[in-house]
Amino acid sequence: MAAPSTSVDDDDAFVFVYDRRTSSAPELKIPTGGLFTYADFRERVRSALKIPAKESFVIATTNRDEICSDESWDLIDKGDTLYVLKNLSQELIAPAEERVNYLPHYDTIVKGGMYEYYASEGQNPLPYAFAELIDNSLAATALNDKSRDIEVRLHFDESAPQRSCIIVIDNGKGMTPRQLNNWAIYRLSKFIRREKSFKGEGSQDESLDGQGQTTVPDTPVARYMNSDISYFGVGGKQAIFFIGNSTRMISRPKGSQDVHELTISKDEFEKKEKNNEAIYSGFIRNRKPGDSSHLPPDDEIVARLIGEEMERDSFTAVVIQSVSPAHIPYLKQHASIWCRQLAHIYHFYLHGPDGNVASDEDGAEPSLYQNINIQVKLYLRGQTQPKVIDLRNIEDDMQTLFARSTAHTFEFKAIVDGSSAVEGLLRYHPFLFDRETYPSDAYDPRVEPEPEDDHGYAINEQRARGKRPIFECFWNGRLIPYTLIEDFDWCALPKKNRSLPVECYNRISGVLWTNDSFQVSTNKLTFLDLEMKLKDKNTVFMRVVNGHDKRTQIDKEFTAWLKECHEKHDKQIFFSGFKGVETRTDV
Amino acid sequence: MAAPSTSVDDDDAFVFVYDRRTSSAPELKIPTGGLFTYADFRERVRSALKIPAKESFVIATTNRDEICSDESWDLIDKGDTLYVLKNLSQELIAPAEERVNYLPHYDTIVKGGMYEYYASEGQNPLPYAFAELIDNSLAATALNDKSRDIEVRLHFDESAPQRSCIIVIDNGKGMTPRQLNNWAIYRLSKFIRREKSFKGEGSQDESLDGQGQTTVPDTPVARYMNSDISYFGVGGKQAIFFIGNSTRMISRPKGSQDVHELTISKDEFEKKEKNNEAIYSGFIRNRKPGDSSHLPPDDEIVARLIGEEMERDSFTAVVIQSVSPAHIPYLKQHASIWCRQLAHIYHFYLHGPDGNVASDEDGAEPSLYQNINIQVKLYLRGQTQPKVIDLRNIEDDMQTLFARSTAHTFEFKAIVDGSSAVEGLLRYHPFLFDRETYPSDAYDPRVEPEPEDDHGYAINEQRARGKRPIFECFWNGRLIPYTLIEDFDWCALPKKNRSLPVECYNRISGVLWTNDSFQVSTNKLTFLDLEMKLKDKNTVFMRVVNGHDKRTQIDKEFTAWLKECHEKHDKQIFFSGFKGVETRTDV
Ligand SMILES: Nc1ncnc2c1ncn2[C@@H]1O[C@H](COP(=O)(O)OP(=O)(O)OP(=O)(O)O)[C@@H](O)[C@H]1O
Ligand SMILES: Nc1ncnc2c1ncn2[C@@H]1O[C@H](COP(=O)(O)OP(=O)(O)OP(=O)(O)O)[C@@H](O)[C@H]1O
Ligand SMILES: [Mg+2]
Ligand SMILES: [Mg+2]
Repeated sequence: MAAPSTSVDDDDAFVFVYDRRTSSAPELKIPTGGLFTYADFRERVRSALKIPAKESFVIATTNRDEICSDESWDLIDKGDTLYVLKNLSQELIAPAEERVNYLPHYDTIVKGGMYEYYASEGQNPLPYAFAELIDNSLAATALNDKSRDIEVRLHFDESAPQRSCIIVIDNGKGMTPRQLNNWAIYRLSKFIRREKSFKGEGSQDESLDGQGQTTVPDTPVARYMNSDISYFGVGGKQAIFFIGNSTRMISRPKGSQDVHELTISKDEFEKKEKNNEAIYSGFIRNRKPGDSSHLPPDDEIVARLIGEEMERDSFTAVVIQSVSPAHIPYLKQHASIWCRQLAHIYHFYLHGPDGNVASDEDGAEPSLYQNINIQVKLYLRGQTQPKVIDLRNIEDDMQTLFARSTAHTFEFKAIVDGSSAVEGLLRYHPFLFDRETYPSDAYDPRVEPEPEDDHGYAINEQRARGKRPIFECFWNGRLIPYTLIEDFDWCALPKKNRSLPVECYNRISGVLWTNDSFQVSTNKLTFLDLEMKLKDKNTVFMRVVNGHDKRTQIDKEFTAWLKECHEKHDKQIFFSGFKGVETRTDV
Repeated sequence: MAAPSTSVDDDDAFVFVYDRRTSSAPELKIPTGGLFTYADFRERVRSALKIPAKESFVIATTNRDEICSDESWDLIDKGDTLYVLKNLSQELIAPAEERVNYLPHYDTIVKGGMYEYYASEGQNPLPYAFAELIDNSLAATALNDKSRDIEVRLHFDESAPQRSCIIVIDNGKGMTPRQLNNWAIYRLSKFIRREKSFKGEGSQDESLDGQGQTTVPDTPVARYMNSDISYFGVGGKQAIFFIGNSTRMISRPKGSQDVHELTISKDEFEKKEKNNEAIYSGFIRNRKPGDSSHLPPDDEIVARLIGEEMERDSFTAVVIQSVSPAHIPYLKQHASIWCRQLAHIYHFYLHGPDGNVASDEDGAEPSLYQNINIQVKLYLRGQTQPKVIDLRNIEDDMQTLFARSTAHTFEFKAIVDGSSAVEGLLRYHPFLFDRETYPSDAYDPRVEPEPEDDHGYAINEQRARGKRPIFECFWNGRLIPYTLIEDFDWCALPKKNRSLPVECYNRISGVLWTNDSFQVSTNKLTFLDLEMKLKDKNTVFMRVVNGHDKRTQIDKEFTAWLKECHEKHDKQIFFSGFKGVETRTDV
């Protein structure tokens, strides 16, 4: 008999046996402790079923594989269900119920992210994995009194790539041991979490954290930037195991003098499987701040991190080790690209509801939002100081480029299903003197350089916006990157009776903001059905002016606005693409 | 003390206690059976740690919540870890390890699919959930001697919508009890499955089914249609729980006289959770074919299905109940749309590697592939006969429309990473007399009706292909619907020096076929990085003519081909969009 799936004394071993020779009796639980040969087992079955010594019978699995030798007996596990039959091919006199276990494989966690983040339009999906961890930090810092500080630290060591380590650390509310335990439970979303309420624990915000309640403010906020970006109970785990193969979560909850630590890694799962240990069990290490005595001596990076704990109040650090080697060149060499992408994702959190309209020197700081600091720090072996990129200082992310080339805006609102509101904004990027001001997008292949015809004239096919859809879409304030919406009826190029040049319709960009009454996919790369719902015939659009809804028809409002934009802001003669006439003589 | 998380005798109850007053000793396992009040427990702790009667101490959770009353004691679970401290705020003398369990929540299975299938370009994602079940049936029937029959049956009952039931049934190799058990294990992919090999079991194909081996032929097949579409160990479960809330899997493995049945449902999970029973445990019912004695009396649909078992050799039936009411109107009213979508996904499996080029009456049957039959049967209450749609008879799926409007083709191949080959095909859809023959796509909003200018002339911006990318992409023979590839350098509209009219470049459609050396996302809606890899500068493209690679430059080959297409097949003068010259006087 093979090793049981959980390690117990052989004394506990047993099998279930259905006597189905002629009977429909319930199963017998037959102990198999101390049985080493098939012959012993057969004897025990015979006596348990009181089968006369001369009567023949066969023992078989529920797949009718005969157990008739030490080898086949060896393949039987503890808890298996077996038949006793007259012969292998007899009909099953009565049904036989067989106990089965189907614990999710640990790849649920380890490979949860591996096939979730995908490239779209040539974009590397890694920034979207980081975004999951930043999402968690935004939620955790939502109620901070002080500024909300989130750091993404990357430690790369040329000489020892396997020591590379990525840390996302925030000064949010941290996690209690129970919350840290809950963190590890795949798919335990906040909606189904049950937390206990010890006296006074409400003061640590824990009592808010269960049964459908959220830890973020309940009052409406502009552009739905409510920091409530946790939803499925998988994001952090998926992201971590997309980036690497091992994580150490270190957290100090608000008001606590202890630090709590939990590691989960692919190696550990494999070891537990090999040793027949419970797969989804582990240890949280509770310790005092600064105590790194449990670390292997060569783990300097984590030791230094733990060294900082004394200065930190509450915090959570997500330490990712065994970083997938395939990611490292991109992370190192293209930091400016993926930081720009992150600045884009969190643009409105970083700059406020109006976006990064003016540079800081202009003094127009959207003060309410300047308390969110997201920094990327690149530590390279041999360099004493990290390279620091503050996402708020990035001025070439798409949303900043859009905001700063806007001549005029058009605010609107969509009411879907009679209730959920989507906020929207259109921006006009005029033609100025000799060029379009619609930002060209170095990292988005949808916007191509203007094609020229054989004579070197620009061809009027891919101007300004080109093939790029008008709208980017934000969910609870953060970008959902792969859902782009082309246009709506009321702002699309009319098929007939245009009173404005075609080009004007290509000079607009747009943003949509929703809250979580619209659903996103688990990887937060796409909305599930935002576009379908917005395009439903019952959806009502209205222009918003100075915070007030205008009840006049939005298509008229839009056309008037576009006309105004064209007349006021486009500043040059523009030749549309005259291509000559082609004559075919072959037909 | 609260109910333990698994039901055991109270006698087994215990807690782990760390004495951290002044000591760094390991934890003590203190039994708590028979302790009903906090006072009793405190007494037991005192005596276990030999604390003198007068000495004060506190008992606390690892979150430093004091256990000091019957109420707080009540919140402690079996197996919890507690501290004994001098006072609540003392420093932790030494670390304390706390056992935690983090079994994935059952929403892993029940909600696995809920946020995975998303709409793109206005398409309802439901057909893609069905596709997962058809994928499984294609894999299961790959080695059939007889024809491969797959049926999707939909039973709708207006008067009792909650009884609606969807069944996907195939005549494939079926599942043994162990395979059925494995089916239920989330993320247990074929690559990590371990199956035992009882003597002779190889004849049931089971020995092929583990450790990285596949159950489908290993010889190369055209367009990579190897039926090997199982990959992650989640597809079926995700699809089922996207469609409904309950499943009954019924299977009879090849050569077996028994039928095996397993049900998994949201209700059952909830019941097990409520009763503190093991979540991922259940029963397989082994029974003789046709025996429906275990069914509730009103479950006529499943009873009838079981009634068919005697005539069936090996089979698998996936029965989905508690169908989500939101899906029913679409399934009922738009059967032609989603069947067309399925015909598109499996186009090459249904029609062979050349696609549905000619209707069957023409006698040009691609015989090799005519043995795959996929039928959709719609059973409506009160109607004696179901409405039957045979996917092979559908003639308006996109691939059929493409195939039948093709004037000329261009075959090619891409070698990625020096090894993996992608097969490719371009097709030319000519302009004939007064119209484009590029199929217009009623259900794809990317192809819009031709816009007209103010004078009623067609505008040359959105012709033929319009904004639709050229290439659709197939993985192991089946469509990956949301990955579309715009073009490649060598077949894109050249930016300069065009010798052919712009329109010609809009008259091509294309298909790419890959095997699983390219990765797809778990929901099989997108490729992870096919486009990035194809556009890598090291990827080599070459034209294929009559099965032979041509080493000449593909861009030249393509341009020559396109020229030939234009000259030979376009049949009319075509006015390109002369739009006049606009003069602005306002600047
Ligand atoms: N930085 C953090 N600080 C505090 N708590 C955190 C932090 N990161 C994660 N958590 C806790 O762990 C839980 C699980 O995180 P995870 O990202 O895996 O899923 P989620 O955020 O609940 O849902 P989603 O799948 O939408 O991300 C969170 O709900 C939160 O309670
Ligand atoms: N119709 C069927 N006939 C026989 N075996 C089946 C059938 N459907 C599923 N199975 C078995 O159950 C397993 C699990 O199916 P499931 O679709 O959940 O995951 P998968 O096919 O392994 O991977 P993927 O996530 O790519 O679909 C399959 O690998 C196959 O062994
Ligand atoms: Mg999260
Ligand atoms: Mg599958």
